[in-house]
Amino acid sequence: MILKTQIRAGTYFDSVVLMHLQRSLAGLPGVDDAGVVMATPANQELLAEFELLSDEGKAAGADDMLIVVRAETEQAAAQAIAQVDDLLKKRRSNVATEFRPHSLDGATKQLPQAEFVLISVPGRYAAGVAEQALELGKHVFLYSDNVEIADEIRLKEKGRAMGRLVMGPDCGTAILNGVGLGFANRVRRGDIGVVAASGTGLQAVTAGIHNLGGGVSQAFGTGGRDLKTDVGGTTALMALNVLARDDGTKVIVLVSKPPAAAVAARLLGAAQAMGKPVVVQFIGYPPPGRQVGNLHFAASLHEAAETALALAGNAEGAKVTEPRQGYLRGLFSGGTLAYEMMLGVQATLAPLYSNTPISADQKLDDVFTSKGHTIIDLGEDDFTQGRLHPMMDNDLRLRRLKEELEDPETGLILLDVVLGEGAHPDPASELAPAIAAGHKQRKDVEFVALVVGTDEDPQGLDKQVEQLESAGARIFRTTAGAVEYASRRLARPPEMMGTAVELGAFQRPLAAINVGLESFYESLKGQGAEAVHVDWRPPAGGNEKLMGILARLKTTANG
Amino acid sequence: MILKTQIRAGTYFDSVVLMHLQRSLAGLPGVDDAGVVMATPANQELLAEFELLSDEGKAAGADDMLIVVRAETEQAAAQAIAQVDDLLKKRRSNVATEFRPHSLDGATKQLPQAEFVLISVPGRYAAGVAEQALELGKHVFLYSDNVEIADEIRLKEKGRAMGRLVMGPDCGTAILNGVGLGFANRVRRGDIGVVAASGTGLQAVTAGIHNLGGGVSQAFGTGGRDLKTDVGGTTALMALNVLARDDGTKVIVLVSKPPAAAVAARLLGAAQAMGKPVVVQFIGYPPPGRQVGNLHFAASLHEAAETALALAGNAEGAKVTEPRQGYLRGLFSGGTLAYEMMLGVQATLAPLYSNTPISADQKLDDVFTSKGHTIIDLGEDDFTQGRLHPMMDNDLRLRRLKEELEDPETGLILLDVVLGEGAHPDPASELAPAIAAGHKQRKDVEFVALVVGTDEDPQGLDKQVEQLESAGARIFRTTAGAVEYASRRLARPPEMMGTAVELGAFQRPLAAINVGLESFYESLKGQGAEAVHVDWRPPAGGNEKLMGILARLKTTANG
Repeated sequence: MILKTQIRAGTYFDSVVLMHLQRSLAGLPGVDDAGVVMATPANQELLAEFELLSDEGKAAGADDMLIVVRAETEQAAAQAIAQVDDLLKKRRSNVATEFRPHSLDGATKQLPQAEFVLISVPGRYAAGVAEQALELGKHVFLYSDNVEIADEIRLKEKGRAMGRLVMGPDCGTAILNGVGLGFANRVRRGDIGVVAASGTGLQAVTAGIHNLGGGVSQAFGTGGRDLKTDVGGTTALMALNVLARDDGTKVIVLVSKPPAAAVAARLLGAAQAMGKPVVVQFIGYPPPGRQVGNLHFAASLHEAAETALALAGNAEGAKVTEPRQGYLRGLFSGGTLAYEMMLGVQATLAPLYSNTPISADQKLDDVFTSKGHTIIDLGEDDFTQGRLHPMMDNDLRLRRLKEELEDPETGLILLDVVLGEGAHPDPASELAPAIAAGHKQRKDVEFVALVVGTDEDPQGLDKQVEQLESAGARIFRTTAGAVEYASRRLARPPEMMGTAVELGAFQRPLAAINVGLESFYESLKGQGAEAVHVDWRPPAGGNEKLMGILARLKTTANG
Repeated sequence: MILKTQIRAGTYFDSVVLMHLQRSLAGLPGVDDAGVVMATPANQELLAEFELLSDEGKAAGADDMLIVVRAETEQAAAQAIAQVDDLLKKRRSNVATEFRPHSLDGATKQLPQAEFVLISVPGRYAAGVAEQALELGKHVFLYSDNVEIADEIRLKEKGRAMGRLVMGPDCGTAILNGVGLGFANRVRRGDIGVVAASGTGLQAVTAGIHNLGGGVSQAFGTGGRDLKTDVGGTTALMALNVLARDDGTKVIVLVSKPPAAAVAARLLGAAQAMGKPVVVQFIGYPPPGRQVGNLHFAASLHEAAETALALAGNAEGAKVTEPRQGYLRGLFSGGTLAYEMMLGVQATLAPLYSNTPISADQKLDDVFTSKGHTIIDLGEDDFTQGRLHPMMDNDLRLRRLKEELEDPETGLILLDVVLGEGAHPDPASELAPAIAAGHKQRKDVEFVALVVGTDEDPQGLDKQVEQLESAGARIFRTTAGAVEYASRRLARPPEMMGTAVELGAFQRPLAAINVGLESFYESLKGQGAEAVHVDWRPPAGGNEKLMGILARLKTTANG
């Protein structure tokens, strides 16, 4: 076998052109395999994997087009390479010859009503194009990947200040005003809105909604990094806010791979405050339960679609309570109850601390001193070595309760009361007086008791509940109930700074400018949307990396 | 305020006695607060927290009883301390005077039909007592905490070889033959069995079952560490096996705080092979979906109870397919679909690897080479920098598919096919021939396609499905379906070595020996069980730590 390599330095074609050329070459007589790529390190590695990388090929750079043919004979390889120009010309003549602007400015003049710009140019140029689009006042759909996170943060902050959405980078899909952007299934319009930090997540959910007979109002992609700590969910929060205000949206579905815990809490806090039912599927993120107020947690993407449909058929405003000040202080005797409670409230309450934390950053420095929202398992070794378990002996709990009452930041004190064999014969007789005294001492603190027991338990379930209730505690019999109550009372929605997105852009027929992959333009036109394709090329001449840096410096200086 | 301390070197009382003494002292006139504890470092820290630790108290050791009184005057403090002996004597005279053996041997002679031993002595003595109980052929309920993990592993291995359960250490609760051990709610008997690595988890579920009108056959605690990697779920697996064979158990509930991934896979593999419906609530462990075959994943402890009841009312044998050989190889274009699939199969398939792993130990060393069960997201940056996305270009997938067919360990190849705008205009036209060729090449490899799309998608959903099906692929439209199929075909139950637990112990009235907290003995008697209480004291004389080590050496030498 013969390996023949040709490098065209500084020559750019988009990936569709390269793919077609590679296929054509691989199909030529005597050719065993072929590779046609921009010679990025990743592409070189792939070529090597398929034994298509020569030493010559290794020397090429990211701005060079690299053509490799593996053939049975030297002659077959040479003949294949010789056809490259003809094949490129043939493809070129197939492409429509309508007038195409060479810049965003030009495209804007050609289609002034365009409010969206789709960008799928190579990653290192994408931030610059997106910046330009924002400066022209457009919403941005940024398909490109390999965009630096610093650029993402900067673009999203800029968009937030202006009330413009930056969907992406690495945003594969959206359905806006009934038109699919990037990869999108064709679905009927309806009353379910979607916000997704995951491309096929959005596709699976919207396709599911359609297949089950429902429809989609708007579906926003945010890009996979939006829910990471550094970005903080900016686009997801803005998109949620649009759907909350949109009269055409009855139910919202929120989809993501596991988000950062603090970002999850911000988003769910915002979702909770909206009142509309929100179906959440943070795939692989431990759900706090099936339902917390207006938040419904699905177990799969398909179930998210099913749940949204069920809720849309039966939507009613959720009760939104005015949240109170202060932090949760949970003093538990049952370790698993503490854990389940923590799992439940961590969805909306932050910061949360514990002596038995779920994640390492929730670890309490000093188990004897609460801070923020705190849940303490008093049955842990810290407290039980050589002492009775708190289910038998309330001493430590009563002492801790007094300390929490001294803390002005305490807003709600939660105690579990676990009845049954082996436990204290009458725990309420000790806890209720302490709760009653606490009420007197601090009118601004609520007391909640989570009572686990049966009507056959020796303590007498009803008698226990009665004592606790008359002392002023609110009683729950399942963790889910206590979670929902604490979350509703103590969660505070994040402040939405910046400018609200103007809803008009989502009420007019979609018009968009496409920069990058031509197939996305064709898809827009095929769906009946107004669109203009920019005939984009990498900034001309010499060192393109330097050009990129210069462009970024320029926009930063302006910004 | 005056702080007065008394140390009684080498004096042991159990925690109940100490608690009562402390309360009595704190209630005496002029006394502000009191502490009576065995002077372990943890207890000293607690005393310090409540300003009850003097320099004198700091000097006491773990085998010393430490008495501290804080009073308004020197005189009040002195008078309180002076009453200690009287208070102890008073309590002693309240205790029943029936004959009590001083050793397990003696207790066994007194109640030969006892098949269970409850142990709640201080942690450093507990392993020795448990070892003795096993040697006498008893099942062990080990309430004590602060037992070293090496001891736990050794005891459980010994128990497994003998067909004896070691529930614990740190096992708070069990309900065996209708009798609650340790902390347990009183619940009616019924057809739901429970295995729980969490104390209040077991209580919440069994109380929930009772409160909803159902009943419990057997409920086994395993101790919180049983599902950690080092222990490997020995007790949980043995208990599951008992419930699988028990005709009185229709549905099983399996509860734990988040287990180690590999242990979870072992347990779920075993549960899957049993055929009976199993409700799983690994609190905070990302569930693979709502249902995978006979495994039902609950979103809360209470929901676990609800689901078990629903299934018990409608129990039918699940289909148990003969598993096939080989590993799963998932070649995905959709990142989120890959992630959801991974999350689903990781519940039962191990080891699992990926270029986009859920946990760090699943990271594939070389993204170009599969090993074990592998799921690859070909839309990741590794593969897409400067190339078209695999939803548009099947080149890389087809190359990878060929490689998987070369691997003799490949058993099932899974491809996602995502239709819609922007995607390849006819993906099945390229994938189906490759599948058909693969079928010819490897009769022992199955092909599964996960198709995401709608009837309005430009590719024609039916036409795509048809092509893939005629090529020999099994089609699923949701990840859940693909997960269930792959899991059912490829999961292998762990081998159960050791001796099976004899079922008779769970069909006779409960008889038990109690060593440690007297209140547990009283609880057994109160429930009508036959029981003997051992009047246990720390091994007499001198250095008790040394005694413990000697005892352990002795049993190890014998074992």
